Amino acid sequence: MAHDRPVIDFYFDFSSPYSYIASELVDALADRHRAEVRWRPILLGAMFTAAGTGPLTDFPMKGAYSLHDFRRSARFHQVAYRHPPVFPVPTQHAARAFWWLDERAPALAREFAQEVFRAYFNAGENVSKRDVVLELAGGLGVDAAALGEALDGEDVRRRLREEVEGALARGVFGAPYFVVEEEPFWGVDRLPQLEKWLASGGF
Amino acid sequence: MAHDRPVIDFYFDFSSPYSYIASELVDALADRHRAEVRWRPILLGAMFTAAGTGPLTDFPMKGAYSLHDFRRSARFHQVAYRHPPVFPVPTQHAARAFWWLDERAPALAREFAQEVFRAYFNAGENVSKRDVVLELAGGLGVDAAALGEALDGEDVRRRLREEVEGALARGVFGAPYFVVEEEPFWGVDRLPQLEKWLASGGF
Repeated sequence: MAHDRPVIDFYFDFSSPYSYIASELVDALADRHRAEVRWRPILLGAMFTAAGTGPLTDFPMKGAYSLHDFRRSARFHQVAYRHPPVFPVPTQHAARAFWWLDERAPALAREFAQEVFRAYFNAGENVSKRDVVLELAGGLGVDAAALGEALDGEDVRRRLREEVEGALARGVFGAPYFVVEEEPFWGVDRLPQLEKWLASGGF
Repeated sequence: MAHDRPVIDFYFDFSSPYSYIASELVDALADRHRAEVRWRPILLGAMFTAAGTGPLTDFPMKGAYSLHDFRRSARFHQVAYRHPPVFPVPTQHAARAFWWLDERAPALAREFAQEVFRAYFNAGENVSKRDVVLELAGGLGVDAAALGEALDGEDVRRRLREEVEGALARGVFGAPYFVVEEEPFWGVDRLPQLEKWLASGGF
């Protein structure tokens, strides 16, 4: 094995409510089992196209239920949640900024991801906007001018495209989606199974 | 309130793997909170049409994951599971037989439902067949000739149609689907939230 500690690949989209809830839970879960989390923002739109599905809230009946369940699931997990005034939003700027940061300072990238999630699902900020993304990064001490220049370049676009293609190749079709040594878990409601998997080495 | 004890309306389709897993768990959960379960077979096809969705296993990527997750979720909940050789199947005979029995002997109807689920998800029987349904009912002491006659008549068709329409009117779009005093819970993975709801009177 390449790693001494188990690795949880945590695929998410910054606009996904259940990804946000998972983001508030997954690190503590990993700590309980001395596992490592790799935060991996991707773009759900590409997954929906590949899997022939779409955003939950676009479906009749299921849409109304989902809006109710986002809030109730957050309460159940004791995660602060305010449904964003603009929802869903495109998240490529935030995802590209993450991957740019991740190459330079992984711990900071992780912190940035949490900031983006909380700005969107708590403070109601529209994190689809380039300016909002730069401001959030700047607040963490990131050189916003350098990040802005990177967002306009080809490198981070290519990096995100590769991440999305890699996720699709691995079978990721929704978010949050976790992979632990090739065992896939889809949805925040599979965290109990993921935890049992880590505790038992499979079941 | 019409009931002294909380009532869990348990909507399910006999061909739904997660409904089967829920059927093995829901009565014990209800007992822990002195709640009553009303087993309510419906036809998922009608829900899929209304909600613009379809069987999980029909979707690319999601389909393969689901087949894996059915089995793993069953192991997680310690429920015996063998994926049926013919899947999914139409379940109107079984559902109509349930409702016919329910009008005559509710406890027997509940027992019959469990027999059908186990025959399909454990013994690999094709429970879409009228003969299999009659045989399963006969094994519980039901008058199979009278049931067979009922299945050919209009009354049980109308009864099931009313149940499906009532479920749709209530917002049921998938299975298993639970309603506790108008609070909806979709999926076997929402049972922990349902249980907390019963324990706390809401949260």
